[in-house]
Amino acid sequence: MVPSNPTRRTVISTALAPIAARLTAQPGPTRVERWGLFELTLSGPSNGNPFIDVPFSAEFRQQHRSVPVDGFYDGDGVYKVRFSPDAVGEWTYLTRSGRPELDGKQGTLLCAAPSASNHGPVSVRNSWEFGHADGAPYLPFGTTCYAWTHQPDALQQQTIDTLRQAPFNKLRMCIFPKWYEYNRDEPRLFPFPRTAAGVNDYSRFVPEFFRNLETRITQLQSLAIEADLILFHPYDHWGYALMPPDADERYLRYVVARLAAFRNVWWSVANEWDLVKGKQPADWDRYFRILEESDPYSRLRSIHHSVVMYDHSKPWVTHLSVQGDEFSKTAEWRTVFRKPVVFDECKYEGNIPKRWGDISARELTRRFWLGTASGAYVGHGETYLDPNDILWWSKGGLLHGESPRRIAFLRAVMDAAPRGLAPVAGAYYPCIAKPGEYYLYYLDYHQPALADFSLPADARFAADIIDPWEMTTVAAPGTYSAKFQLKLPGKPMLAVRFRRLA
Amino acid sequence: MVPSNPTRRTVISTALAPIAARLTAQPGPTRVERWGLFELTLSGPSNGNPFIDVPFSAEFRQQHRSVPVDGFYDGDGVYKVRFSPDAVGEWTYLTRSGRPELDGKQGTLLCAAPSASNHGPVSVRNSWEFGHADGAPYLPFGTTCYAWTHQPDALQQQTIDTLRQAPFNKLRMCIFPKWYEYNRDEPRLFPFPRTAAGVNDYSRFVPEFFRNLETRITQLQSLAIEADLILFHPYDHWGYALMPPDADERYLRYVVARLAAFRNVWWSVANEWDLVKGKQPADWDRYFRILEESDPYSRLRSIHHSVVMYDHSKPWVTHLSVQGDEFSKTAEWRTVFRKPVVFDECKYEGNIPKRWGDISARELTRRFWLGTASGAYVGHGETYLDPNDILWWSKGGLLHGESPRRIAFLRAVMDAAPRGLAPVAGAYYPCIAKPGEYYLYYLDYHQPALADFSLPADARFAADIIDPWEMTTVAAPGTYSAKFQLKLPGKPMLAVRFRRLA
Repeated sequence: MVPSNPTRRTVISTALAPIAARLTAQPGPTRVERWGLFELTLSGPSNGNPFIDVPFSAEFRQQHRSVPVDGFYDGDGVYKVRFSPDAVGEWTYLTRSGRPELDGKQGTLLCAAPSASNHGPVSVRNSWEFGHADGAPYLPFGTTCYAWTHQPDALQQQTIDTLRQAPFNKLRMCIFPKWYEYNRDEPRLFPFPRTAAGVNDYSRFVPEFFRNLETRITQLQSLAIEADLILFHPYDHWGYALMPPDADERYLRYVVARLAAFRNVWWSVANEWDLVKGKQPADWDRYFRILEESDPYSRLRSIHHSVVMYDHSKPWVTHLSVQGDEFSKTAEWRTVFRKPVVFDECKYEGNIPKRWGDISARELTRRFWLGTASGAYVGHGETYLDPNDILWWSKGGLLHGESPRRIAFLRAVMDAAPRGLAPVAGAYYPCIAKPGEYYLYYLDYHQPALADFSLPADARFAADIIDPWEMTTVAAPGTYSAKFQLKLPGKPMLAVRFRRLA
Repeated sequence: MVPSNPTRRTVISTALAPIAARLTAQPGPTRVERWGLFELTLSGPSNGNPFIDVPFSAEFRQQHRSVPVDGFYDGDGVYKVRFSPDAVGEWTYLTRSGRPELDGKQGTLLCAAPSASNHGPVSVRNSWEFGHADGAPYLPFGTTCYAWTHQPDALQQQTIDTLRQAPFNKLRMCIFPKWYEYNRDEPRLFPFPRTAAGVNDYSRFVPEFFRNLETRITQLQSLAIEADLILFHPYDHWGYALMPPDADERYLRYVVARLAAFRNVWWSVANEWDLVKGKQPADWDRYFRILEESDPYSRLRSIHHSVVMYDHSKPWVTHLSVQGDEFSKTAEWRTVFRKPVVFDECKYEGNIPKRWGDISARELTRRFWLGTASGAYVGHGETYLDPNDILWWSKGGLLHGESPRRIAFLRAVMDAAPRGLAPVAGAYYPCIAKPGEYYLYYLDYHQPALADFSLPADARFAADIIDPWEMTTVAAPGTYSAKFQLKLPGKPMLAVRFRRLA
C-alpha cells in the first residue's frame, strides 16, 4: 500500500480532546506522538441505525505489521476511528466499510517520540508489578469516584481539581451511572437513548454521554491517572446490569472502539460481579473474551468481587482486583496466580453508617502499609457524611480525610524503593524486599523496643525507622549486617527500612 | 457408720494454710466451711518409698452420699487427705490404707455456711458461662505468670501484692518450672528429687515444692483469683515434658490429691500441647481421663494450644482455652462445642522482640473488647523488657503496662451487665446481648458518625457511648426503640451499650 495524503473529506485530529478539531486540509502526514491518540473522522450515512447498520473499521500498518481497529459512529453522520500507535515511524491506514463514503480511505501518520509526560500505557511487568511502556515504573495508588462522570459539570471539574493535589494515580470509575445509597440522582446523560417512560434503546448509543467520559479520561491522563473503567456493576435501576447478551456485546465493542486508544484506560469488567444476580459465570468469561478479541492494545483487564472471588487464573485476567483486607493471603495469591495483587477496596475512610465506609484514617493508613509490606497494592476511598450527599467514594468533589497525605507519604517511600520487591516468606513481620539490597518491614500493632533482623553478612545496610502516621523517617545510628537487634521506639504502627550501603 | 471424734493420733486442720496446724486435741467435730478445705493429717511409715508403697485414701460420707478421696504422702512420715465439702451439715470420714496406722481412722466434720468472700468453686453454667457454686457470677479476666511460683520468695510475694491491685481473677501458672527465653534460672525447688547431675527420681516427690505451690494457691484464693494450673508444658530442660507414662500418671494423681480440694484450682492440661513433640494425642486424652477419674470435684479442665487446636468436643474438656485472635470464630465455636470460649493468649502487651509479646496496650485493649463483644473471654499477659528479665508474663513482679486499668474498666462494665449474654448472629458490628434487655456493641476501627440500630419496638432503651481507652461512659440523649440512627462521635474504637428502661 502506498501511503497517500488523506482526502479532503478525511478529517484528522491528534488532539487528546475527545471532540476532534475539524481540519479542512492536511498538508502532510499527520503527526501523533507514540501512545498518543490519532483520530480519523469521516462523514457517512445518518439514516437508519448507523450504530448497527454501518460497519466501519480501519487497518493501521507499519511495514509488515497490521493492526485492525474498529471505528464507531459518533452521531450526526460522523464516523471515527481512533488509533494509539505504539511504535515511532510512519504508519498508514486504510478504512473498511460496506458504505463507499467510509471505505478505502487511506492516509499516513507519523508517530513521533512521546512528550515528556507521556510514559505510555501501563501493563504487567515481571509477573507481579506494573510498568509504563517506556520503562517507567508504575505503582498503583488508586482511589474511587465510581459515579463522578455522572455528576453536574462543576462537580466533575472539582473532582479533577482535587485529584490534581491528591496522591492517586488510578481512579476506579463506572461507565454506567450508579443507583445506590447516597446516589439517588438521575444523571443528565445516559449511555443509551431512553424514553421519558424509562425504555432503553440498547441498539443505539448517546455519543454525548461518551464524549463527556472521554473528556474526563483525557483530563485524568493529563494528571497521570489511570482510568480503571468499570464496565458493569450491580448498582443499577435503569436496566444496564441486565441487558440482553447482544446489547452487552455491542456495548463492550462500542466502548472499546471509543476508549481503548486512550493510553490510560484499564478495563475493570465489573465492580462486585458476584452481586449482579442476573448474570452467569459464563457471561463474565464472555465479556473478558470480547475485550481480549476487540482491544488492539490489550489494556489491563480485571474483575472486582464482593464476596466470591472470580477465578483469577483465567488467562484473560491481567491482575487481581480484590476486595477485603486479607493481606496475609497476598503471597499465596502471587504464587498461585503469578499476577499483581491489587486490593482495590479494603473499606473506606469515612463515617457513614456502613461498616465498609466508616473506618478510621489510621486504620486505612495501616492497611496501605500492611498491604504494601505483604506484596500487594492497596486502594483508597472516602465516605464522609456530607449534607449534599457528595461522598468522594462515588461522586468525587473534595477529599476530607486524613489518609490521603499519609498515602502520599507511602507513595514517596515506594517510589524511592527499587523495583522487583517481593514478600519475604517467613519474615517475622510483614516484609517486602529485593534481597540483598532493600527490605521494608511493617510492624503493625507490634511495638518491640528491640527487634531481631537478619540481613546478608556480605554487605552493610543503613536502617530507617519510618512512622507512617507522623510521616517521619529517622535514620537509626550505625550500619547493620548479618543478625542483629535494632533498637526501636517501642511504639506501634512503625515501619523499618534497610538499604544496602554502596 | 457412726461418726466419732477423731483419735488423738489424727491431726486435723481446716486452715487454708497448706501446712496444717497440728492440734493435740479436738473437742468435737471439726468445723469447716462449705467449699473450704478440710485436712486430715496422720503419721505413718517413712521407710521405703511411701509415695508408691503406701496406699492411702479416705471416704467422706454424708447420709447416703459417699465421696472417695485420695490421700498423699507429705514427707517425714506425714500422710494427709484433703477434702472440700460442697454441702453443709455433718460429714464423716473413714480412712483406708494397707498400713494399719493409716487405716480405719474416722471422724466427723461439720460443714458450715461459707464465709462472705467464699462463693465456692467455679464451674460452667448455661453452656457458655462460668459461675461460682453459690450462684455468684464469674467472668474470667485472666492474666499469666507462668513461672511465678519458681521465683525467689520476695518476687513471689511482690506478685501477690501486684495482683491485689490488679483487675485479674484468673492466673495461668505452670506447676513445672519453665525454661524459655527470659526464663533461664534454675528454681530453688523441683517437683521431683533431682541429683546434682540432673537425674530425676520420678518415683518420689518433693513435698516442699508442692507446699509452696499450695501457699500461693491459697494466697490467690484470698484475692478471689482462680489458679489455672498448667500440668504440662513444652518449655522444659529438666525432663518433665517427657516423663514415662507411669510417672505422668503418678504426678497427676499426686497433684490432684494435694490440690483438688482448693476450690480455686482449675486444670489446664497443657500450655501449647502441640509443641510437646514427644507426646501423642492419646497421651493428652489419657491425662484428661486421669483427672476426670481422680478429681472428686470435677474442677474445670481445658488444654491450650499453640497452632493445632485440641478437639474440644471431647467430653472431658469443660471450656475452650484458645490461642489467637480469631474472635470472629467465637460464635461458631460456641455453636459447635457448646462450651465457654476463653482466649487465654491473644498476644501480650509488651515490647520484647517477639511478635507474641510486643503488641500495644491499645491493641490488647481492643482485643479484650472485640473478644468480649464476640461472646468470648479474653486473657491478659505482659512482656515488657526488664533489666533483670522479670517479665510479668512469666515471673510476675510488677505490672508496667497501660492495658490493666482498661481491663478493669471493661470488667466493671461486664460485671454490671446481665448474665446470659450471647453473640448476636448477623449483627452489623460485633455485639453480645441479652435480647430485649441489654446490647453491647463494639465498633472496633469503625468510626460512624451515625449508626443504624434495631431494638425491640415494645420497649425503650437508654444508650451509652463507651470509650474503652479513655474509660468513659457517656449517656446519649434521649431514649431509643425499634429502628433508629444513633449519633456517635465519629471516633474509632468505641462501644455502644443499650439497656432497657424499666
